[in-house]
Amino acid sequence: MVDLEFRERVKATIQHVQKVITESLEAEEGSEFMKDSWTRKDGNGYGQANIIQGGKVFEKGGVNFTELEIPLSASLALSMSERGKNIDKEKLESHKLYAVGVSLVIHPRNPMIPTIHANYRYMEITLEGEKKEWWFAGGSDLTPYYLDEEDCVLFHSCLKEAMDTANPEFYPIYKKECDNYFWIKHRGFSRGVGGVFFDDVNTLDRETLLAMIKSCGESFVSYYPQMVQKHRDEPFTKENRKWQKIRRGHYVEYNLCYDRGTKFGLMTPDANLEAIFMPMPLAAKWEYKYIPEEGSPEHRLLEVLRNPRDWI
Amino acid sequence: MVDLEFRERVKATIQHVQKVITESLEAEEGSEFMKDSWTRKDGNGYGQANIIQGGKVFEKGGVNFTELEIPLSASLALSMSERGKNIDKEKLESHKLYAVGVSLVIHPRNPMIPTIHANYRYMEITLEGEKKEWWFAGGSDLTPYYLDEEDCVLFHSCLKEAMDTANPEFYPIYKKECDNYFWIKHRGFSRGVGGVFFDDVNTLDRETLLAMIKSCGESFVSYYPQMVQKHRDEPFTKENRKWQKIRRGHYVEYNLCYDRGTKFGLMTPDANLEAIFMPMPLAAKWEYKYIPEEGSPEHRLLEVLRNPRDWI
Repeated sequence: MVDLEFRERVKATIQHVQKVITESLEAEEGSEFMKDSWTRKDGNGYGQANIIQGGKVFEKGGVNFTELEIPLSASLALSMSERGKNIDKEKLESHKLYAVGVSLVIHPRNPMIPTIHANYRYMEITLEGEKKEWWFAGGSDLTPYYLDEEDCVLFHSCLKEAMDTANPEFYPIYKKECDNYFWIKHRGFSRGVGGVFFDDVNTLDRETLLAMIKSCGESFVSYYPQMVQKHRDEPFTKENRKWQKIRRGHYVEYNLCYDRGTKFGLMTPDANLEAIFMPMPLAAKWEYKYIPEEGSPEHRLLEVLRNPRDWI
Repeated sequence: MVDLEFRERVKATIQHVQKVITESLEAEEGSEFMKDSWTRKDGNGYGQANIIQGGKVFEKGGVNFTELEIPLSASLALSMSERGKNIDKEKLESHKLYAVGVSLVIHPRNPMIPTIHANYRYMEITLEGEKKEWWFAGGSDLTPYYLDEEDCVLFHSCLKEAMDTANPEFYPIYKKECDNYFWIKHRGFSRGVGGVFFDDVNTLDRETLLAMIKSCGESFVSYYPQMVQKHRDEPFTKENRKWQKIRRGHYVEYNLCYDRGTKFGLMTPDANLEAIFMPMPLAAKWEYKYIPEEGSPEHRLLEVLRNPRDWI
């Protein structure tokens, strides 16, 4: 039987994480985010987007909650089976996918503040009211425009601490998965300086994992506001802004070419395009043969993106 | 046997098309494009990029020539077999792919001038020195930011005339393929107002097709300079520029999510990333819920993109 009570508790946790994170960002911005809720046309899902655009501190971003339960389509099933899900193909359309999650991307205005992404979600596949599969997924990764090693260490330490509560073996495994997952193959470097990424976790009891999701989500307020405060008043040049836009071009490339969340979204029938494209930057740039000068801060960042580091 | 004499004639034609088009654009810009040549690391190919960036009339663009002959990889073969190529899988790596082509994208500064794309290429698959497959491919499509019906009619008329020389049945077929190919599925509208697109043509004798490629390529100078001259001094507002950048975001989405040329490029081992990303705009924008007002010129364009028209 589907355990609706557990779903409700996961949902409450996810909504709590959305609220805590949004409030911490609103405090930095000095004003409220736009609250935009939506419902699927077929009634089988809804979401709430907490959006900032053209802010003083944050140029564009969102902290989005979604809950849906939809019939499994062939393309959705394919995107799952690549990740090892066993679905009875004969009864494909009778399966349902339940998902509840929070997803955020924040692109700040000042290029000295890194872009941040995080998402935490719980998924179930059911067949005729019986739960067949369940898993937690999520992670967080940091995309600086200029390297601040202290930020990187703080970020990874907070994530490690949050994951250690469930299993001390998790952090090293999922830090490595993060480096693999956010690799921009065609450029030969990573989207950012890593973090953690876990796509499919059900090896511990679900209560421990729910508590871990909560810790990971809450840890946001221990790393990101601090980075914003540290860098928000740092001076920057036109060149710094240009580099920021070029790196945001790489972000767009990653999201459209490789990101499973985006692909999954674009494959979901009647998906909310505005929610799927929330992570897109307000402005991105592509220049012919833009190559940072050897020894420049931009070049130093690229060296780290090409050779992912262990930060702890 | 591979017919090297024919390859040389195709190459000369393609280079002639590159030259004619580049010169017509340089005349509009009032200065020369940057000429940037490159060679594949393995020596099995080279290219010449004629590039404009930050020009008075043209914000960014290129007219690129490429010639290469490389072993067929599994991923390249897959991208071909989807289009109906018969390749002996047992001897996959023994096959070679020969390709020669010209590819251009021009993003003008004034939003009243449309963006233009065209490419024309000849391909062969060989096995142990024997030609197994050959085909011509190419097309041209127009992406206006504001609709000018006269431009659309001129554009399609020139392409029809160029294709009619080979076969009067071609234009209606390949106009329709263009509308299908440049469809941005997740947005439910087309990248632009159509043109022609032919991915795999070998149903006529090769001399006729070579002549058609030449006509199509040369037809550029009959439509595009005229559009540039017509619109280059038209006034535009900040809002017009914003819409142009949002539409360029759609262009980026199309190229990274659907364009076979880009995918093919990203799959080609040791490909020249600068050449593959030449079509990317200098600046693109993504806004949360940007919806043009009913009855506005932006809205009128979207209506046409949603409902592709026959322009002749």
